[in-house]
Amino acid sequence: MRKAEYPDEIKALVLQLKRLPGVGPRSAERLAVSLLTNKSSVATDLARALDTAARQVTACPVCGFFQSTGQPCPLCDAPDRDRGVVCVVEHPTDVIPLERTGAYHGLYHVLGGRLSPLDNIHPENLRIGELTRRLSSGGVREIILAVGSDVEGEATAHYLADHLAPLTATTPLTITRLAQGLPAGGGLEHADDLTLHRALSGRRAL
Amino acid sequence: MRKAEYPDEIKALVLQLKRLPGVGPRSAERLAVSLLTNKSSVATDLARALDTAARQVTACPVCGFFQSTGQPCPLCDAPDRDRGVVCVVEHPTDVIPLERTGAYHGLYHVLGGRLSPLDNIHPENLRIGELTRRLSSGGVREIILAVGSDVEGEATAHYLADHLAPLTATTPLTITRLAQGLPAGGGLEHADDLTLHRALSGRRAL
Repeated sequence: MRKAEYPDEIKALVLQLKRLPGVGPRSAERLAVSLLTNKSSVATDLARALDTAARQVTACPVCGFFQSTGQPCPLCDAPDRDRGVVCVVEHPTDVIPLERTGAYHGLYHVLGGRLSPLDNIHPENLRIGELTRRLSSGGVREIILAVGSDVEGEATAHYLADHLAPLTATTPLTITRLAQGLPAGGGLEHADDLTLHRALSGRRAL
Repeated sequence: MRKAEYPDEIKALVLQLKRLPGVGPRSAERLAVSLLTNKSSVATDLARALDTAARQVTACPVCGFFQSTGQPCPLCDAPDRDRGVVCVVEHPTDVIPLERTGAYHGLYHVLGGRLSPLDNIHPENLRIGELTRRLSSGGVREIILAVGSDVEGEATAHYLADHLAPLTATTPLTITRLAQGLPAGGGLEHADDLTLHRALSGRRAL
């Protein structure tokens, strides 16, 4: 006797859901079944939203943030942003928390990742050439390296600082980096050694 | 200055992803961005698989398991299944683990849930009328209640046993229930009191 299985359409859906980050075989099956047994139009609504987003959303060729096709980039084309400051981030998603602070009014440059030779991510895989060209055209007085504070982030920041050093000699450009230290609300007893070391060496006069 | 946000298409996609079980606001955003930044066709492939499955997959009107539209039910139409035994399960997904055992060769009946007055799930919300009609037409000699062993499962099993009792008087129908006891590989020290109680009261002669 052949064991009963899910119809091919469900298996195909499970296969696609398994490609999502953090979705394993069991949760893919659970998602597929819930999508299909739900009385309302969850599955078709999601299919439509996915299709629209996949067709309409592109990366801005200048800053690399998300952009709707045919619409100006919400960052590069904003009339009231300071065009003299460019904040370099790893991922387009890093822009949102920085915007949420309300403390930054300049432009962005999305690298598309960080240097990680072990994962085969080398300088030519990031949007570093675009960054150099963008800065060479002048008008930028500060570039803020807002990469992560882990090993790969450090390596990326150092590479960029070296790589952009010639520009600082010929143009009035300064390179800065996000401060590292104690997170807000964190007592000394919860800070790890490296964080504390960085907080100490980065101490500021009051 | 207006804070930059994701394009509307991404927000619409996040909204749809948040409707999935176990997907909160942050993981919906993570999934949406990963779907759109992925170089390959993950988003469109998933959209297509979802759309096909939503249009093609229906529930078999007899047993309630999944069925491709226009195709015979893989369970009800199998020529080599014992049509005299019907296994009653809560969800269509319960069929797969039972099939995997290889120990069951009969038909199925999916209730579509279990009795749970607190969640507003009453007998008329389950496929109990369909079950009664199916059994009334005769030919079934055993019905196996394969519902869960938690409170709602117990309540559902007792309700069904009461509800189907008249049929056992007029037709040669027996009602059975899955055995409850120690799970495979579990020592006595890991079993909770209720499991041990049930294992004891359900003991079998060797």
